[in-house]
Amino acid sequence: MGVVVSLEDGKKGQASIGPLMELTAQDMSRVNELIISKAGSDVEMIPEVANHLISSGGKRLRPMITLAAARMFGYAAEGHVKLATSVEFMHTATLLHDDVVDESGLRRGKKTARMIWGNQASVLVGDFLLGQAFRMMVEVGSIEALDILSTAASIIAEGEVMQLVAAQNLETTEDEYLAVIRAKTAALFSAAAEVGPVIASASRAERAALRSYGTNLGLAFQLIDDALDYGGNAKDLGKNVGDDFREGKVTLPVILCYRRGSADERQFWKASIEEGRADDASLEKAVGLMSRYNAIGDTIARARHFGDIARDALAPLKETPQKSALLEVIDFCVNRVS
Amino acid sequence: MGVVVSLEDGKKGQASIGPLMELTAQDMSRVNELIISKAGSDVEMIPEVANHLISSGGKRLRPMITLAAARMFGYAAEGHVKLATSVEFMHTATLLHDDVVDESGLRRGKKTARMIWGNQASVLVGDFLLGQAFRMMVEVGSIEALDILSTAASIIAEGEVMQLVAAQNLETTEDEYLAVIRAKTAALFSAAAEVGPVIASASRAERAALRSYGTNLGLAFQLIDDALDYGGNAKDLGKNVGDDFREGKVTLPVILCYRRGSADERQFWKASIEEGRADDASLEKAVGLMSRYNAIGDTIARARHFGDIARDALAPLKETPQKSALLEVIDFCVNRVS
Repeated sequence: MGVVVSLEDGKKGQASIGPLMELTAQDMSRVNELIISKAGSDVEMIPEVANHLISSGGKRLRPMITLAAARMFGYAAEGHVKLATSVEFMHTATLLHDDVVDESGLRRGKKTARMIWGNQASVLVGDFLLGQAFRMMVEVGSIEALDILSTAASIIAEGEVMQLVAAQNLETTEDEYLAVIRAKTAALFSAAAEVGPVIASASRAERAALRSYGTNLGLAFQLIDDALDYGGNAKDLGKNVGDDFREGKVTLPVILCYRRGSADERQFWKASIEEGRADDASLEKAVGLMSRYNAIGDTIARARHFGDIARDALAPLKETPQKSALLEVIDFCVNRVS
Repeated sequence: MGVVVSLEDGKKGQASIGPLMELTAQDMSRVNELIISKAGSDVEMIPEVANHLISSGGKRLRPMITLAAARMFGYAAEGHVKLATSVEFMHTATLLHDDVVDESGLRRGKKTARMIWGNQASVLVGDFLLGQAFRMMVEVGSIEALDILSTAASIIAEGEVMQLVAAQNLETTEDEYLAVIRAKTAALFSAAAEVGPVIASASRAERAALRSYGTNLGLAFQLIDDALDYGGNAKDLGKNVGDDFREGKVTLPVILCYRRGSADERQFWKASIEEGRADDASLEKAVGLMSRYNAIGDTIARARHFGDIARDALAPLKETPQKSALLEVIDFCVNRVS
């Protein structure tokens, strides 16, 4: 499998999250310590389940964004480490609940927690991590940061329900789909970025800039994730090519193919996605249709569009190492298609 | 079915939550409006699922406790209504997740949300309500109240995991079981009661009194619930007698019977609870053993013990209508065994 998508600007492989990792390395080591300590409990199953997911090699992009977004406005106290950890816990809780909702077997190339400890443990440990996330935010004591992150928690859940309702409905429009990923993915990126300037007491305009950066980076990130599912390399992705297809997920590449296709092709998509008849042969056919209608290329173009908005959001801000690292993250996200 | 438990003090049927309901009626009508409005969403499935449970006739004891606990210290602003609603949402979210974890079919005599909309919707709408609960707390703006309620959220989840691990283990000691219900049930009663004096700027001693009242009332409440499952009347209970038994739940009446029983009887409990061979005939036998070992009577005695502690916790406080209503709630809880 594996569709090689040629990238017009030839930047592929150059942009990386390396600069962001270097800039946040010291703070991230404290985040990592806090993750271990706050996922701890006398109830042994809690750290077992939590660490299974926590140690499974996510990039921890969201907490790094929080840390950089605080430091770029001169924040010098301790709260950003707790907020960054809260953001990662919110993300982890969402993944645990997502796997239950999607009935997923694999996540980042490892068996999901629900396959090992059961749905019950995944639901409850997710709840525990969410509770711990709120406790850390409360410790930081910024009502504005609490407002942003608790609002994000509601919106994420709302987005997940929207996705559940829209699931396996091929008539979903691109706009409806964007509303889903704006809630389910972009809201946390947005909150992660905005709480930085908030605790650093930056200006309204600076807060708005980071919020917009986060939202649009999140949208780009999700769209590329959607594209990778039909053309990525399983090793990089930590999931198998075609996972979304086999789970009957209606993502942007599918929406584009379905809308652009012939009546016969729409029948094919209905059988595969709505009626769950997705096997290896139909995956091959799906990838072929994606290529015919340039659905992957156009999904990436959509992602670029949001990446451009994210870039312009940061444009007026003073040049700092953090700003330049955050800009490079956009290119990294958009160009990570293999 | 139905074991009639004679109550020594003859108070049965006299104590009621009537006085608490009357005292909080005006505030509760605002809580009920807020429940409807904050369970609302453009995503239609959210209010559908939420209202299914919200409208199913819970007593709303927890939010009434919050309201009374604020008013008894002269609180005259608006925050208590939001905190009370948050408390009820935390409770509702827990019930939604509980039903998924327990694979329950009935709750308060109605089909559970998971039976109608599926586990997915129950998990996600629970997450949404929890997010909304935190948003309302943040709106109130009391960091101390946020601290108390977010800590409770973690502890509740921890208690649920403890129960999951202890589930179907008949060697669970009474102490271990108390630790579970202290976390899973009493923590929310405790937080509901404590945030009242907190936003009313009451003294440390007054906060501690309400916290202790809530904890011990919660323990008594749960133990009576456990007793009712083996001797209650399904109509009052909103669940069927023997639900806990059929689900293989190790509750205090079972723990007492198991520890006091013969080797043969222990075999019976193992078959019924641990190996899931609980049918109507074995339920009848179980109720017989409960009677032989006075397991229901002693579970009620344990509940009375915690009720007494709750009563003494409030003793030093000034006499107010709220205090007297909260004291009557203890008798109501302890005497609601039919």
